[in-house]
Amino acid sequence: MTDLTPGFTGSPLDRLDHERDDPAALAAHIANPRARLLLLDGLDPIVGADGTLAWGSLADAPADAELALLGLIEGTPRFAALTMPPADRGAYPIFALLAALPPGEAATYAAARSLIGWHARNHFCARCGTPTAVMRAGWARRCTVCDEEHFPRTDPVVIMLAEHGGRVLVGRQPRFPAGRYSALAGFLEVGESLEEAVARELHEEAGVRATAVRYVASQPWPFPSSLMIACIAEVASDEIVLDTKELDHAMWVTREDVAASLAGDPAAPFIAPPAYAIAHTLFVAWLAGR
Amino acid sequence: MTDLTPGFTGSPLDRLDHERDDPAALAAHIANPRARLLLLDGLDPIVGADGTLAWGSLADAPADAELALLGLIEGTPRFAALTMPPADRGAYPIFALLAALPPGEAATYAAARSLIGWHARNHFCARCGTPTAVMRAGWARRCTVCDEEHFPRTDPVVIMLAEHGGRVLVGRQPRFPAGRYSALAGFLEVGESLEEAVARELHEEAGVRATAVRYVASQPWPFPSSLMIACIAEVASDEIVLDTKELDHAMWVTREDVAASLAGDPAAPFIAPPAYAIAHTLFVAWLAGR
Repeated sequence: MTDLTPGFTGSPLDRLDHERDDPAALAAHIANPRARLLLLDGLDPIVGADGTLAWGSLADAPADAELALLGLIEGTPRFAALTMPPADRGAYPIFALLAALPPGEAATYAAARSLIGWHARNHFCARCGTPTAVMRAGWARRCTVCDEEHFPRTDPVVIMLAEHGGRVLVGRQPRFPAGRYSALAGFLEVGESLEEAVARELHEEAGVRATAVRYVASQPWPFPSSLMIACIAEVASDEIVLDTKELDHAMWVTREDVAASLAGDPAAPFIAPPAYAIAHTLFVAWLAGR
Repeated sequence: MTDLTPGFTGSPLDRLDHERDDPAALAAHIANPRARLLLLDGLDPIVGADGTLAWGSLADAPADAELALLGLIEGTPRFAALTMPPADRGAYPIFALLAALPPGEAATYAAARSLIGWHARNHFCARCGTPTAVMRAGWARRCTVCDEEHFPRTDPVVIMLAEHGGRVLVGRQPRFPAGRYSALAGFLEVGESLEEAVARELHEEAGVRATAVRYVASQPWPFPSSLMIACIAEVASDEIVLDTKELDHAMWVTREDVAASLAGDPAAPFIAPPAYAIAHTLFVAWLAGR
């Protein structure tokens, strides 16, 4: 309970940004017999008994798949195959796999999953409707008619604990497993700072008014490609006005409650989010006085 | 030089998220004779002598333009017309206008500009290439064939001062006005935390290695729709290896240098970014010991 490093961070990947526009460099990496391909089950990771991701050779890619150069790990080029994955099974079926992956392995997987998923959803130009083609070693697409360049999308999401009188606010979404509560969260919108998005979401979902917002930590979240930005917000009152379209229930919990939940105490008032979710990091940080 | 509130923040807009899926509520706002339309010159703001944005009536919208409900200001519904704006003239021609806009007015403008621009670039479904239609009172589009929903995009950008031995690193991009230096910056990629994006960008652009990253502030930046996330990063060495494709020059500057630049001292070693840019806030925050 002292680890403040969020899940999905710490990938050893060197992303080689400076080589993405260099076709000769890309060709050399593809021709490198030591080049490795990330092996996936659809979009899900394949995790070895030792808790590491499974890698194969480039010959394991489907014949019609283009390759994205993820970067270098331990000096070896690493690729992902840009296949059209089967329908997204969502995050839940793979949560057991994620729990078995060390954060650095999960981070490499997150980059690949978000990139593959983005390509699968962007075969056409949003500006003119024409098919697009892979460019920049798999890190962009270009329209074959209007030349518009499209880059992988990352959606900022604010996730926050409202704090009042030594307690924090937790809520449960209808889709959560039984007993699970977490920090409130929502997508940041155009024209907002992250502090403003935190204040808006807390007011929309729970009717509380933020008076101060402090940043705690961030993590990528590859379902499909969010940047989770975790904050703690002091609020003016503990009176909750629940948005029942977003949340089943919300409640204020004490430090003792949060400590019991993180410890997995069956008498705790809620089941905490898993360690790889930044909400978990947020609870740990709050207990640590951050 | 004591203001730590970033530009483009503080809009009085109540975004009315809960009404966006309610056609009757939207119709009532459109029928409200007090409803106001943000007046624009292409995508640029029209700024009155009193430094406020110009608003007209909904009758001022082009006949074929759809309307986006920005939200309420002072109890009055506020709309933007979703026109196809002329080719983006970029940020620079409107910088004088932005300097005249109070941050709250600029923030309302930023939301509208990013939203209008996003619609103009997303008339087709990126998944299947079919035309999309406006939904959610102008806050999303839906594919008319595959039903995929598309939401306005916000791109997280990290902008950071590397700090070493009491100095910070500033750089100039080739497109900057003469004498201008700023914090280094770059787009966050899928699979990265913001701290990891800061470290990667500093290493790519200047060859320095971050040992600790602290968050300072954020702002929306509507060219076309970024979330600027400002940080200060301690780095291990002051030896610069410049990426000359990204930067013309980079240099270490002292507190005295930064103070002189912010004060507009003609003897200062660089011209600071304008007050509405979060790089300016970052310099002020660094001087204030944040």
